[in-house]
Amino acid sequence: MPGETSIQTSLTQLLDIKHPILLAPMAGIADGELAAAVSAAGGLGILGGGYGDRDWLEAELAHLSGKPFAIGFITWSLANQPALLDVALAAGPHAIMLSFGDLAPFVEKIKAADCLLIAQVQTLAQARQVADQGADVIVAQGTEAGGHGASRATLPLVPALVDAVDPLPVVAAGGISDGRGLAAALMLGAAGVLMGSRFYVTEESGAHPVAKAAALAADGDRTLRSSVFDELRGLDWPQPYTLRSLRNDMTENWHGNREALEAVLPAERARLQAAIEAGDFRLAPLILGEGVDLITDSPPAGVLVERLVAGARAQLERHAGRVASP
Amino acid sequence: MPGETSIQTSLTQLLDIKHPILLAPMAGIADGELAAAVSAAGGLGILGGGYGDRDWLEAELAHLSGKPFAIGFITWSLANQPALLDVALAAGPHAIMLSFGDLAPFVEKIKAADCLLIAQVQTLAQARQVADQGADVIVAQGTEAGGHGASRATLPLVPALVDAVDPLPVVAAGGISDGRGLAAALMLGAAGVLMGSRFYVTEESGAHPVAKAAALAADGDRTLRSSVFDELRGLDWPQPYTLRSLRNDMTENWHGNREALEAVLPAERARLQAAIEAGDFRLAPLILGEGVDLITDSPPAGVLVERLVAGARAQLERHAGRVASP
Ligand SMILES: Cc1cc2nc3c(=O)[nH]c(=O)nc-3n(C[C@H](O)[C@H](O)[C@H](O)COP(=O)(O)O)c2cc1C
Ligand SMILES: Cc1cc2nc3c(=O)[nH]c(=O)nc-3n(C[C@H](O)[C@H](O)[C@H](O)COP(=O)(O)O)c2cc1C
Repeated sequence: MPGETSIQTSLTQLLDIKHPILLAPMAGIADGELAAAVSAAGGLGILGGGYGDRDWLEAELAHLSGKPFAIGFITWSLANQPALLDVALAAGPHAIMLSFGDLAPFVEKIKAADCLLIAQVQTLAQARQVADQGADVIVAQGTEAGGHGASRATLPLVPALVDAVDPLPVVAAGGISDGRGLAAALMLGAAGVLMGSRFYVTEESGAHPVAKAAALAADGDRTLRSSVFDELRGLDWPQPYTLRSLRNDMTENWHGNREALEAVLPAERARLQAAIEAGDFRLAPLILGEGVDLITDSPPAGVLVERLVAGARAQLERHAGRVASP
Repeated sequence: MPGETSIQTSLTQLLDIKHPILLAPMAGIADGELAAAVSAAGGLGILGGGYGDRDWLEAELAHLSGKPFAIGFITWSLANQPALLDVALAAGPHAIMLSFGDLAPFVEKIKAADCLLIAQVQTLAQARQVADQGADVIVAQGTEAGGHGASRATLPLVPALVDAVDPLPVVAAGGISDGRGLAAALMLGAAGVLMGSRFYVTEESGAHPVAKAAALAADGDRTLRSSVFDELRGLDWPQPYTLRSLRNDMTENWHGNREALEAVLPAERARLQAAIEAGDFRLAPLILGEGVDLITDSPPAGVLVERLVAGARAQLERHAGRVASP
């Protein structure tokens, strides 16, 4: 029975979870309901605290209790409203996850609360830095990931980080959408996976229904890293982070055209805002990674977790039989 | 004994080889000696026919006989001197490998010679096309690869192609440098791996000794996809292909600066030529992928093949034990 299979790693032990599967803290998408569903299935639900919104955070935290869970923030944005970390810690998470920016201002408080610190990084240099700063778990995020990220790819990044920060657990993120990806991550030496795009398309996900439907039809050849949507939304993302989303009319018009965009920014910003409200993803950002090719349905998140584990197990067993020592 | 281990896949059967490990046809680097060493070790040596040089090809082919081997060409360049395909086929290779361009002009002749056709692609759309055109093996090349390539990453590309072209064997390329990468590729559904950067740094490799030494010290955070060296060398690469190499003074000066470069092209071209001749890789291209972090020595190619297999096997066995069904 798939429900009875588990995969044990240093990460499952550290976080006290059954499966080494983490829900990515997707801003606005990884809400209390989705995070609770992933935690209930034996993974780790990480709430998508995103840029930081106190009311949202308090409301969504109310869904989470009993099972281990975590809360994720965009680090450079948390620096603008550090009090949100207190709200998060007061809810008793197993871990705080920080991505994109300097951890230094937050490490001490997280440690003092007896909470684990998960740091998402994009390079070997960053991994060494967050290991020195006291991260307990390092997420190696590859360029194929949906959402913000940088340029290195998951497959070579993961083993390089494993070697560099040993014995800290490294979690693979970016492009993992099924049991094959989970099994591959384990082979690379990862202690688990963190998945965003695949959980975007689940029953509990907070994503727009039109976006979920579009994701099912989407083509992994058609994603792009760009700063267009950040410019349009007035989000002050530091270098070198860009956003991976599906190409659409907005990216076709403005990617690589920064000066022209600036000349018409107020009008385009209004057009984008209207499109977001209307759920028109020809203009609004459909934030998904290259793993979108492998997304073919929208199951409950708990069913997805079971499938991932069963799929990984099947791959491992199939190949164990192929390695022969005559 | 590691020498007794083998990994059997549909690819090893099709190509009549012992291990599902292919030497990438690196122009100028994968010469007869290196290809023969990989074939002798039970992998498939693929001669790096590159842009096409008849004298070089004939000289290097003389090293290859007895064991299965193949010959690779840059497709758009072969179209300029199609007679080279006759030279290659006359040597009796198990396969011809074509990368970067339209296969159509060559398929019939290759098939008529009872030779297998390996096609390297970078997108799902290209994979569907070459499958329709009659490719026998499809290499899914991710953006992390050294050398020319495009933007999609290996980890999500491989399973998407496996599903799209089933039952054709898909080979993973890009970022694979050790047994962990080989095991991961198998989990993704690949029938084998094609490796360039790692074989660049082997005893038999035709790479410059200074380049090999620099590769050992290189940092995977410091590679870049760019067109700078193609512009400098006057190589007419079609869109969307760019070259991944280590960042050096040349890329720092000219990447993203095309117009400024054009203004001083003859002088810079001369400077590059001199640097290439002098083995000065502050200016000359050091063509390596993101997997360079994992390259820490320069073994004989045959030893490397054995290590890859033993390493993959160890990962598979370690994890088989971790998956529990209580
Ligand atoms: C819709 C979406 C929103 C995201 N928002 C965030 C975020 O707010 N904070 C963060 O750390 N990562 C965010 N990410 C990135 C994820 O943490 C993770 O790296 C990524 O989803 C992994 O790649 P995958 O999408 O291929 O699974 C987001 C990803 C997606 C798809
Ligand atoms: C030095 C070097 C030269 C290359 N030259 C060629 C070539 O001439 N033709 C080709 O099809 N691929 C070439 N490649 C790309 C390889 O076929 C392959 O996709 C790549 O090496 C795989 O990624 P890896 O370098 O991470 O192993 C080259 C790669 C390198 C590193």
